[in-house]
Amino acid sequence: EPDAPLDLAEAEEFLGRCYGENPRLGPVEPRLARVRAQVAATGNYTHTPQELAHGAKLAWRNASRCIGRLYWRSLVVLDRRRVRSAAGIHAGAVEHLKIASGLAGEDARPGMIRPVISVFAPATPGRPYPRIWNEQLIRYAGYRAPDGTVTGDPRNVHFTAAMAERGWTGAGGRFDVLPLAIETPADGVRLFPLPAEAVLEVRLRHPEHAWFAELGLRWNAVPAIANMRLTIGGLHYPLAPFSGWYMGTEIGARNFADSDRYDLLPEVARRLGLDTSREATLWRDRALVELNRAVLWSFDQDGIKITDHHTESARFLAHLRAEGRAGRDVPADWTWIVPPMSASATGVFHRYYAEADLRPNFYLDAEARQ
Amino acid sequence: EPDAPLDLAEAEEFLGRCYGENPRLGPVEPRLARVRAQVAATGNYTHTPQELAHGAKLAWRNASRCIGRLYWRSLVVLDRRRVRSAAGIHAGAVEHLKIASGLAGEDARPGMIRPVISVFAPATPGRPYPRIWNEQLIRYAGYRAPDGTVTGDPRNVHFTAAMAERGWTGAGGRFDVLPLAIETPADGVRLFPLPAEAVLEVRLRHPEHAWFAELGLRWNAVPAIANMRLTIGGLHYPLAPFSGWYMGTEIGARNFADSDRYDLLPEVARRLGLDTSREATLWRDRALVELNRAVLWSFDQDGIKITDHHTESARFLAHLRAEGRAGRDVPADWTWIVPPMSASATGVFHRYYAEADLRPNFYLDAEARQ
Ligand code: HEM
Ligand code: HEM
Repeated sequence: EPDAPLDLAEAEEFLGRCYGENPRLGPVEPRLARVRAQVAATGNYTHTPQELAHGAKLAWRNASRCIGRLYWRSLVVLDRRRVRSAAGIHAGAVEHLKIASGLAGEDARPGMIRPVISVFAPATPGRPYPRIWNEQLIRYAGYRAPDGTVTGDPRNVHFTAAMAERGWTGAGGRFDVLPLAIETPADGVRLFPLPAEAVLEVRLRHPEHAWFAELGLRWNAVPAIANMRLTIGGLHYPLAPFSGWYMGTEIGARNFADSDRYDLLPEVARRLGLDTSREATLWRDRALVELNRAVLWSFDQDGIKITDHHTESARFLAHLRAEGRAGRDVPADWTWIVPPMSASATGVFHRYYAEADLRPNFYLDAEARQ
Repeated sequence: EPDAPLDLAEAEEFLGRCYGENPRLGPVEPRLARVRAQVAATGNYTHTPQELAHGAKLAWRNASRCIGRLYWRSLVVLDRRRVRSAAGIHAGAVEHLKIASGLAGEDARPGMIRPVISVFAPATPGRPYPRIWNEQLIRYAGYRAPDGTVTGDPRNVHFTAAMAERGWTGAGGRFDVLPLAIETPADGVRLFPLPAEAVLEVRLRHPEHAWFAELGLRWNAVPAIANMRLTIGGLHYPLAPFSGWYMGTEIGARNFADSDRYDLLPEVARRLGLDTSREATLWRDRALVELNRAVLWSFDQDGIKITDHHTESARFLAHLRAEGRAGRDVPADWTWIVPPMSASATGVFHRYYAEADLRPNFYLDAEARQ
């Protein structure tokens, strides 16, 4: 689909919306005429910086799985379209993480996480383009031992093995940050370690249980999805990593709790002294809550922005109201919007949503899934 | 739709499946010939007791919102098709509750809840039919005071007011069982109280917190949906109350916790001494877990069958495997199957389901919704 010829109707629809929502950009008609002429002559067109910025914000606004969309207008858009080398992409990713973490940029304060997207060059139909292989910019290695057990994040066992084959040597720990695997037409695949100072992390402890710190858990502060394609007005940006701040459940209810991830509920329950002989004691539910309290509390203590699912749910409902006042539908996927714990205790559980695939948007290509 | 003429194709499809799955009923062809002749002559046909029983089981098996389907074969089908008077329907409902609660019937043991359906007369197109107005056979009254506050179950405020208008006087408590409102063509609407001995209830207390009993909470043991229409082979049974046993979350995460129901999370959190000044303390999640522990523990102590969401999730996955071995798809609605708390800690969360509207099935008619 990034290889398909440009869809002029999609370009026109996007430009109409972009200029309609941003009167300061002036009337859309002259711009439409220029784009039509450019497409007729070259089969392609280029976004102005303003179009790119608003298009990226619309892609976030249309992301039907995202509960965090109230702040779609505040997205920081870094225009990296002229960067094409592997080294340049690596530098861009590092800069992205620093700005997103509050480690660089205007008014920076470490832990003051900001929503950021870095948009690299658009795809040209029929031509190869640069990609980042990593699913997220920061992911922890997963090492499978000969006996089948995994050290680290089981989700990344396959990726970790691929990195090892390409010469990367991990330290063998539970939280080793994986290198970036950057593929460019010029250089093929090259691996780049992430400098430690670009990776803000939080060591987990619990507000009441001192033993929790002994579990030796940590997590990074910025969830930055790196493998989704951004589509704006018929143009495809295959490399456009974006990041927000964490909702605690992503770490405490999924990354640490899923049985095919760090699978920590049994250990936390044991440490809590719970009766795990029967499900009806709800030991899983109790361990889950304590794990999530630890996540939220540790981030908060370290001054690193994070939100809980109750707050984020209320914000999303505020977003629905604001968009309703603006006369817009909010496409939403219930199964993703509703948090993975205490679902019915959040307002987003108790309603239906319109589902729609609006563009601009983010897509996960088959290639990126591997 | 119960008023539409009989759909012969649906009748044939059902009979083919029914006899195909039950070889002991003999070949379907002679039965199909008789049904075709009967429909040609009268526009209608009648289910044999075996067809009715298997049809009701298939309706359960096809109920895409139900996580409890592993035991679909064990459904006790009470054939009440000849009962048409309001008094007879009332007696049938009372008998249903007693059998479902283990208070009557073979090998009865109080608390040994069994899945039961009582099937009353089918609808004849164009003719009025008996109905039960209640959403469930056992529901608690909700009384709205002049200042807007509600005593009892806010969900039933409208129904309670309708009962009061028809002469029912509730005791004004938090757990007053509502009367059955039975409408028949002959008698119009009549109200029947449920005898106390047909309503098995559990007083809630907590395995660790003695104060929990002081909250004065109780709930009934048998969830019996009374307002859904059963459709089998083109015939419609508008009055076919069915019941299983509770999954604890229905009581602890919804009836007691929803903010538009008993809304108990703030009170439980206060009693637990939790910090409710910020959402990030996860006080709602902690109160939710303790409320649900109390539900499961109290039922268990009283010897009343109930299941937790982890166990029921594992059973549903077993059901999917069993049906897969039988070569059948299991239509399922993720948003209903996945439990309303600790969702991602259950196996049913981590997969997709086929959605399909297979018949036989249960339907909620517009009229019943009121
Ligand atoms: C600002 C704070 C943000 C919060 C709290 C937030 C929250 C979430 C959550 C909880 C999910 C579900 C994740 C999962 O279950 O795996 C999600 C998904 C998503 N979010 Fe956000 N988000 C934020 C920012 C952003 C930004 C800045 C973008 C893009 C510009 C974005 C786009 C998306 C997309 C595309 C998905 C779906 C990902 C997929 O399909 O795997 N979000 N978000
Ligand atoms: C035996 C134990 C059973 C368990 C544990 C069970 C569990 C559940 C649960 C948890 C729900 C969702 C309820 C809600 O969120 O409001 C549900 C829905 C449903 N169940 Fe079951 N169930 C059982 C028996 C039955 C039986 C015997 C039938 C019919 C013969 C049945 C048919 C249905 C239907 C039709 C729904 C959807 C109701 C609606 O649309 O409101 N279930 N079940």
